Amino acid sequence: MRRFPSSTFLYSTRRTLLSTASVRTIMTPSTSTATRWATHRADRIHEELNSGLDVWTLFNPVVFPTAINLGQGFMNWQPPSYILDELTKDFQNRVDLHHYSHPKGRPRLRQAISDFYSSQFNLPSGAAESAEDASQFGKQRASSTRKLDVEKEIQITSGANGGIYSVMGAFINDGDGVVCIEPFFDQYNAEILFHGGKPLYVPLLPPSNSASAHIDSNEWTLDLTHLEQVLSQPSTKALILNTPHNPVGKVFSPTELGKIAELCVKYDILVVADEVYDCLTFDGQPHTRIASFAGMWDRTVTVGSAGKSFACTGWRVGWLVGPDHLIAPARAVHTRITFAVNSSAQEGAAIGLEGAASEKFFDRQVQEYAQRRSLLSQALDDIGLSYTIPHGGYFIMADAAKIKIPEKWVEENDVPEGILKKPEDYLKAWFIAKVCDVVVIPATAFYAEKGAEEVGKNYVRFSFCKDDQIEQAAPRLKKLIPYLSKD
Amino acid sequence: MRRFPSSTFLYSTRRTLLSTASVRTIMTPSTSTATRWATHRADRIHEELNSGLDVWTLFNPVVFPTAINLGQGFMNWQPPSYILDELTKDFQNRVDLHHYSHPKGRPRLRQAISDFYSSQFNLPSGAAESAEDASQFGKQRASSTRKLDVEKEIQITSGANGGIYSVMGAFINDGDGVVCIEPFFDQYNAEILFHGGKPLYVPLLPPSNSASAHIDSNEWTLDLTHLEQVLSQPSTKALILNTPHNPVGKVFSPTELGKIAELCVKYDILVVADEVYDCLTFDGQPHTRIASFAGMWDRTVTVGSAGKSFACTGWRVGWLVGPDHLIAPARAVHTRITFAVNSSAQEGAAIGLEGAASEKFFDRQVQEYAQRRSLLSQALDDIGLSYTIPHGGYFIMADAAKIKIPEKWVEENDVPEGILKKPEDYLKAWFIAKVCDVVVIPATAFYAEKGAEEVGKNYVRFSFCKDDQIEQAAPRLKKLIPYLSKD
Repeated sequence: MRRFPSSTFLYSTRRTLLSTASVRTIMTPSTSTATRWATHRADRIHEELNSGLDVWTLFNPVVFPTAINLGQGFMNWQPPSYILDELTKDFQNRVDLHHYSHPKGRPRLRQAISDFYSSQFNLPSGAAESAEDASQFGKQRASSTRKLDVEKEIQITSGANGGIYSVMGAFINDGDGVVCIEPFFDQYNAEILFHGGKPLYVPLLPPSNSASAHIDSNEWTLDLTHLEQVLSQPSTKALILNTPHNPVGKVFSPTELGKIAELCVKYDILVVADEVYDCLTFDGQPHTRIASFAGMWDRTVTVGSAGKSFACTGWRVGWLVGPDHLIAPARAVHTRITFAVNSSAQEGAAIGLEGAASEKFFDRQVQEYAQRRSLLSQALDDIGLSYTIPHGGYFIMADAAKIKIPEKWVEENDVPEGILKKPEDYLKAWFIAKVCDVVVIPATAFYAEKGAEEVGKNYVRFSFCKDDQIEQAAPRLKKLIPYLSKD
Repeated sequence: MRRFPSSTFLYSTRRTLLSTASVRTIMTPSTSTATRWATHRADRIHEELNSGLDVWTLFNPVVFPTAINLGQGFMNWQPPSYILDELTKDFQNRVDLHHYSHPKGRPRLRQAISDFYSSQFNLPSGAAESAEDASQFGKQRASSTRKLDVEKEIQITSGANGGIYSVMGAFINDGDGVVCIEPFFDQYNAEILFHGGKPLYVPLLPPSNSASAHIDSNEWTLDLTHLEQVLSQPSTKALILNTPHNPVGKVFSPTELGKIAELCVKYDILVVADEVYDCLTFDGQPHTRIASFAGMWDRTVTVGSAGKSFACTGWRVGWLVGPDHLIAPARAVHTRITFAVNSSAQEGAAIGLEGAASEKFFDRQVQEYAQRRSLLSQALDDIGLSYTIPHGGYFIMADAAKIKIPEKWVEENDVPEGILKKPEDYLKAWFIAKVCDVVVIPATAFYAEKGAEEVGKNYVRFSFCKDDQIEQAAPRLKKLIPYLSKD
């Protein structure tokens, strides 16, 4: 694998890049011609514009130029050569790869998705945790195999992100409640708010009294009574469910998903199943699709991502899978946003899915990621920092509560105001960056205010989708040892 | 130039692909589990979903498999080799071309845009049509050269389309009026409606009593009194102005733009200047940017497109240029829709702009398009069909009113209901497709209801961004001769 040259780490944010300073500038017209447009914007983006410096700006590689970046979740290697070799030839020779694709997505990619995914929309055999569950799953098994209709049940989108945005645009009216399981991918919030929706948060909670240095990611659990309470509110319309989960690494079990599915059927909830890490589960944990439970297909849009699957986050190719009555309205929105998705990138994703089985690509990739997970785990064990062992995805949530920062250090170092006014995980992440020259992300970036104070402030997120970088980070992290409390 | 193999003309629509039949299907849940999601969608998309079969579905290459397609506006050749050769090498070798770009857009592309465009944001010398205009322009010239700030004044978007969508999302509140100059690019309407805006139409009108076989595209004019009447309404907030104009081919003159600019300043209107054909003007007509008039920079977002400029409609790379106070909110929306734009395509656009001057690319391209325009004009002259001579873009509006379809033909041919219930240009275009096996687009696709009845129904649109196809279409079009009235 080739490495990402560090000079290309030029960008800073996954959010708006709007600093408080630039928001202030916006208030003052820069010329003498008065215009309301110097300050007037649509109401939907007020919260977004007023949220101040975001985590991606604060922990920007430009701020930490020599740091090893275990922050943002993108790989520092190429897509697999079986894709790139074929695609490069086509890219040079084929006219159609440079022109509009069908707004539904290229027929070849939709076919590849149907071929690859159709067998996955059922409940995996042997998934039940008990005899009772097995009997329940027998009743709930929606179909043994669902052949996905390439014309009606698949929509290619500008990244998984563009897909989720389009679903919100297609179904969320002013005041509709949309449940996010906290912590959550930070784009959800704005995607809900931009469409007049109201984000509602139900937390995924770590075991309360774990004395162990390691928490199993699947020990993070949802309080189903709390979930039902929120789902049963008349204004609640949708649930965004992310499994395998970023940043916790939890792979929801069939039993858990079965119970969530029951609630969604009971309260007629639309489910956006963000399963972009579907090909990345470890330790033999099966990835289960909530769409496969009885009564769920008709209310679920499942979201997939070429970027996560094939190490090509810059291609911006994602897809939606679901029934015609959900896909068609989402397509109507997506088509009006950008008409169609980049053609050659779609072709690359098709090549990837078509060849995955014969190349044993996903098996190999999981092994490689498992190896990176081991390296990062070892590095954290070596310094005695507790963490959650992820069964999916490429992030590790580490226990930042144990890091004790001397008051004097804060006084003597020039900690930005933007860090100090955030929950304490921001200061912890800043401290790690300054002391170790390793960038990680404070977990409260993935929390709403209440959850940040109650849970999120205790964690920082490490990415392990970084080749060679973890080995380099390990000795640097040892500088944290003197600051870790022993209890 | 290499040709687009006809087997790749697989796609059918530039709209939602939602047939009336499929809308009907949506009303009926496909399984026994009742869910409101079988019929419930966000209010914003109701009009979109109820609009029935669109023009791109009706005039689908699948419907006319042997036809020469002079319908959709995309090229059947590759991007220039000076881009493709460099880009293909990078594509194969560079890791960063496969991963996230900065949400603002890649630094290299933003720099290339700044370098290429900065000198264009002024009023061209010699543009005035009279001494009075010259004096007026002297006063209005905003700056001789505006060095565009790569961090604040440029945003890369998922196509020009994604850019316009983001501007609407950033500035349009429920009930805000947005003026479209009719005929208009058919995506505008939904982009306004999805954000709660109200489209308002002001027509571009052809000369009323032209006896000539040719109308000059610049003879299509705006009634400025009418425009002022609409702009002066308190709820009117924005104007989308497209020059060079699709489908008319009009290049708005500095004098016209100066007058429109004055009205926009007077009523404090936000202008979205859709200038995606900026590099495609003929006959020495200068392209003038409305942002360059006094008082306009602060209220104008100028939209550009790599797809139109470099024959790569499938790359989906566009850009917004404007003041920080307009670009930052648009970026906030764009970032949440899809985070960032395809990386390699951005790199390709940068290579294109960087090399355009030394390759004399745009000069050559204009000459090639002018040649295609001649071929199509000659074909229309040969059969005696009147048309508008375009000074920009790659479309010709032909006078379909002269085509007289025998009643018997309609009775004897199986004309779809979807065609018969539309304005008569749909039947004319259907007739041309059936009789000549050449697909063109009825002009009312670019009109709202009233304008369609008053003007649009008299026209069909031919594309000339098609290599070799025009030569092949010419003899076929001769089959129209018996059906053209002589008056």
